[in-house]
Amino acid sequence: MIYLTRKERFCAAHRMFRQDWSDEVNSKVFGKCSNPNWHGHNYILWVTIKGEPSPDHGFVMNINTLKQIIAEKIIIKIDHKNINLEVDFMEGKIATTENLAVAIWNELKPSVEKEGAMLHCVKIEETENNSIEYYG
Amino acid sequence: MIYLTRKERFCAAHRMFRQDWSDEVNSKVFGKCSNPNWHGHNYILWVTIKGEPSPDHGFVMNINTLKQIIAEKIIIKIDHKNINLEVDFMEGKIATTENLAVAIWNELKPSVEKEGAMLHCVKIEETENNSIEYYG
Amino acid sequence: MIYLTRKERFCAAHRMFRQDWSDEVNSKVFGKCSNPNWHGHNYILWVTIKGEPSPDHGFVMNINTLKQIIAEKIIIKIDHKNINLEVDFMEGKIATTENLAVAIWNELKPSVEKEGAMLHCVKIEETENNSIEYYG
Amino acid sequence: MIYLTRKERFCAAHRMFRQDWSDEVNSKVFGKCSNPNWHGHNYILWVTIKGEPSPDHGFVMNINTLKQIIAEKIIIKIDHKNINLEVDFMEGKIATTENLAVAIWNELKPSVEKEGAMLHCVKIEETENNSIEYYG
Amino acid sequence: MIYLTRKERFCAAHRMFRQDWSDEVNSKVFGKCSNPNWHGHNYILWVTIKGEPSPDHGFVMNINTLKQIIAEKIIIKIDHKNINLEVDFMEGKIATTENLAVAIWNELKPSVEKEGAMLHCVKIEETENNSIEYYG
Amino acid sequence: MIYLTRKERFCAAHRMFRQDWSDEVNSKVFGKCSNPNWHGHNYILWVTIKGEPSPDHGFVMNINTLKQIIAEKIIIKIDHKNINLEVDFMEGKIATTENLAVAIWNELKPSVEKEGAMLHCVKIEETENNSIEYYG
Repeated sequence: MIYLTRKERFCAAHRMFRQDWSDEVNSKVFGKCSNPNWHGHNYILWVTIKGEPSPDHGFVMNINTLKQIIAEKIIIKIDHKNINLEVDFMEGKIATTENLAVAIWNELKPSVEKEGAMLHCVKIEETENNSIEYYG
Repeated sequence: MIYLTRKERFCAAHRMFRQDWSDEVNSKVFGKCSNPNWHGHNYILWVTIKGEPSPDHGFVMNINTLKQIIAEKIIIKIDHKNINLEVDFMEGKIATTENLAVAIWNELKPSVEKEGAMLHCVKIEETENNSIEYYG
Repeated sequence: MIYLTRKERFCAAHRMFRQDWSDEVNSKVFGKCSNPNWHGHNYILWVTIKGEPSPDHGFVMNINTLKQIIAEKIIIKIDHKNINLEVDFMEGKIATTENLAVAIWNELKPSVEKEGAMLHCVKIEETENNSIEYYG
Repeated sequence: MIYLTRKERFCAAHRMFRQDWSDEVNSKVFGKCSNPNWHGHNYILWVTIKGEPSPDHGFVMNINTLKQIIAEKIIIKIDHKNINLEVDFMEGKIATTENLAVAIWNELKPSVEKEGAMLHCVKIEETENNSIEYYG
Repeated sequence: MIYLTRKERFCAAHRMFRQDWSDEVNSKVFGKCSNPNWHGHNYILWVTIKGEPSPDHGFVMNINTLKQIIAEKIIIKIDHKNINLEVDFMEGKIATTENLAVAIWNELKPSVEKEGAMLHCVKIEETENNSIEYYG
Repeated sequence: MIYLTRKERFCAAHRMFRQDWSDEVNSKVFGKCSNPNWHGHNYILWVTIKGEPSPDHGFVMNINTLKQIIAEKIIIKIDHKNINLEVDFMEGKIATTENLAVAIWNELKPSVEKEGAMLHCVKIEETENNSIEYYG
């Protein structure tokens, strides 16, 4: 079993809040991340897939195929967007990195499996010091 | 002459646009950076000052003093904020990194000089691949 | 299950040696790391916890809580200190990164669990090229 | 159980192709990586071993021993070489990073075990964005 | 005056040698970098331009324009190529990073000036530890 | 004129203090950096030299020569040492990074000039966020 990881990047705005909470409660729970005028990040995304390298060409999956899947399913939908307002797969969810990792996993899984590999991990770095991993 | 550099970080939302231009023109000039729903970045800021190391204590300036100046003048005003709407020193300016570097220079210069050093360079990295330097 | 990682840094002095060995043996086993006049490092520490994101706020644990736990239990005790002489949780242990990782694990575990999460991994980078991981 | 990781680097040329395929097929499958005039990379190699820290000296394995094993078995054979033409342990294999990770695992395993530790992972970064892991 | 830097990457093969020298002399002068079977690197390229930010849109130059210039003039000609055999602007030159920096400067200068900015610096990192800068 | 930069690393212990000051004054001026039990860093050192590339071999200076000069004059004297107690070129100086940069400049200058190049800059990073440059 071989693990292949592709690193991508996107910039997006977000805000942590719940509509059913007052501004005071939101601010107490989420701190400055709840700023109503938004803030944003340079997110880094690592997608790890696993499988047996094909005896034919020696790849688990052609890295260009993986790149394309991530571009189509994730990057064009989220890069330079507002995660709370504009990203369909985050609709109705609080815009934490935890929820984002699960949502990206669900977006990528069918396409990765259609190519004969397994999705292993979605890792997102929100800032240089904070990151999230999800293994399904 | 010795050059001392302090690296800080902030996350903020912004949008590139001019109110006197139509959405079409804004989008043509600024591309996806003009998204009306905002996007954001993890900015990195390097502030370089210069001076002679004091024979007393061997520092150009105590790094904690420099840290405090940058925190008070810049970071608390811009971190987790919207650059277009909430940052006083960017009022009335297009939120490009170029304009941001000049504005930060102007905010920092008097405080650095009051401590007996000279401001040498303000460098801002907007994404891993794009950065701006301003030397006054 | 979601994995959340926080990255912190500390600078400390240490020396690898056993008091019951002669200087010759210490120097043979530990090389230049046994220098009696100490040397030191910029250590990087990654703490990974795991748990289910709360349906309430979407976090495994508020990153500020984790930050505070690491600050109180580890950083204020070890940053700019001598690991052999001044760090209570390393008393009586050889100051290898292996032993440091286990000791930090033991310091963090109760506080992480009190917050309803599980400690998953303590990773320490001693230099750019050498690192240690401990999973309990 | 403690995990110890050593990071090393090497520069090498390679080309992805199969001799039993025409240039057209090679180019279609491997893209610009199939350039007959070669291209190359700054590879980064992380070798992770695991074991119990010795009560004697607190190490899983002396990092200098691990460094020497990687140098002798891998680095001197592959650094500034052509992976397709000059690296004995890659003979007869397509020069993908997948195959390289498996081959390096096989080269390192006996020496690591002779030192009383277990090989845990071989990770190779081919470019900043693409990497491979193999766990045996 | 504002300085704008764009970072790009390319992978290429090269070999350091002079055809009018024997293999012995080449190997003595250039060491393992003279390996006749080629080797290669992940080069990083930073292009810095300077100018006044336009009062119209606040940019020195639209970063997408700079990106395109570097792509067309440099990246498509050198990425996944052999610098000695395939890169027109390196014909007849020894493939040192010094010569490469000067050649890239000459390729970029007219296009940058046509856009109303000045070329300030070409920096190339050959490995993590070695880099070259050229200011014209 | 071409600028060539070599990056090296060293780990060392130090303490900021003046013997003619009381512990109280030292602690007030230098903070936790004045800890009498030492602390230490992974320093990064960049040495930049400048000159014309030789028409003979295309180098400003063979990088291996520069590497050797830095190793002999600096690294073997300071790596895994105590800067205050064991480094001859820092004797009688406060162990600030400012003073270290000047001292390293003075150590390197004659050897670099003997090889026909000029020393341009000594840059030292003490921590990820703090660095010093000296241009003579």
